[in-house]
Amino acid sequence: MKTSIGAKTYVFPTPVMLVGTYDRKGRPNLMAAAWGGVCCSKPPCVCIALRRATYTYGSLVERKAFTLGFASREQVADVDTIGTCSGRSEDKFELLGWTPRKAEHVDAPYADEVPLVLECELVHTLELGLHTLFVGEVKDALAEDGILDADGQIDVLALKPIAYAPIVRSYHAVGGSLGSSFTLGKQRGG
Amino acid sequence: MKTSIGAKTYVFPTPVMLVGTYDRKGRPNLMAAAWGGVCCSKPPCVCIALRRATYTYGSLVERKAFTLGFASREQVADVDTIGTCSGRSEDKFELLGWTPRKAEHVDAPYADEVPLVLECELVHTLELGLHTLFVGEVKDALAEDGILDADGQIDVLALKPIAYAPIVRSYHAVGGSLGSSFTLGKQRGG
Repeated sequence: MKTSIGAKTYVFPTPVMLVGTYDRKGRPNLMAAAWGGVCCSKPPCVCIALRRATYTYGSLVERKAFTLGFASREQVADVDTIGTCSGRSEDKFELLGWTPRKAEHVDAPYADEVPLVLECELVHTLELGLHTLFVGEVKDALAEDGILDADGQIDVLALKPIAYAPIVRSYHAVGGSLGSSFTLGKQRGG
Repeated sequence: MKTSIGAKTYVFPTPVMLVGTYDRKGRPNLMAAAWGGVCCSKPPCVCIALRRATYTYGSLVERKAFTLGFASREQVADVDTIGTCSGRSEDKFELLGWTPRKAEHVDAPYADEVPLVLECELVHTLELGLHTLFVGEVKDALAEDGILDADGQIDVLALKPIAYAPIVRSYHAVGGSLGSSFTLGKQRGG
């Protein structure tokens, strides 16, 4: 039996993305975003949705570039700190004792402490209402050696990514593999 | 030490969304999509990115409506079956023994077996390359009583949502709460 629970964005889970940008003065900043995801395979594109009121909004529009950082489970309090204050009044790198690095392929910074980073160039902007959707083409991905397996592929259990539950507003661990796509369905004769 | 691992859409985790549409003949169909997410809070909007080659693409463009279903961990093989075959040649509801229901607010079907469903009306279309991004406004959400807590809010541990690791192509369980957003960062004095 299903109950109507109202027109809200119940998407489970979403990623938690640390959006890195330089402001007008060239100061590096990070914000935490859960609105967005993958949106194209070729060219490789990701999207994030920001409110115009955020400090990152103006920086992103001006520099037309951003990074997306994916933190590990142990960094969840740092991630929430990033999501709780504004780069307008705080230097979040200083606050956390994190080290800003300049991305190689785009005009944006990332935190050296974060194990996985995508370097993105802004390619589309779409006004939706309270949020604006920014589509970025991925120019490169950087991974800490410790999260790569012997084949140089991401080891999800070593990355220990953080999942988010919108509306409910809780962070969650990502557990062990339930199987591989394009395999499970075939195994059962589907 | 970070290594370049190439320009790919490494976003961890993504949701796994079952996109429900009616085809030209009015037959209900489901596809599995991991590209997309939340994109606006007001109006509440979600996005999904589809390849033009999928059967769902034409149905969605024609009917301007879709549902997004979120399956539980126990249904991961069903989800993968949905992702492995095409509605062009298969009746996926029949294949899985699932029951199609008509959404109340939009011209699209959903599977009664899936515990959480968003009813969405197509409001924006953006061509990106291999994928087209469709933005849907959420008109209602439907939840099985068993995934709601005493306050009528989603209980993430009861929903047991499935997370996906792109490129790596593995499904993952979503674990227990690591804490609440806008709380963890403040607790640590951030």
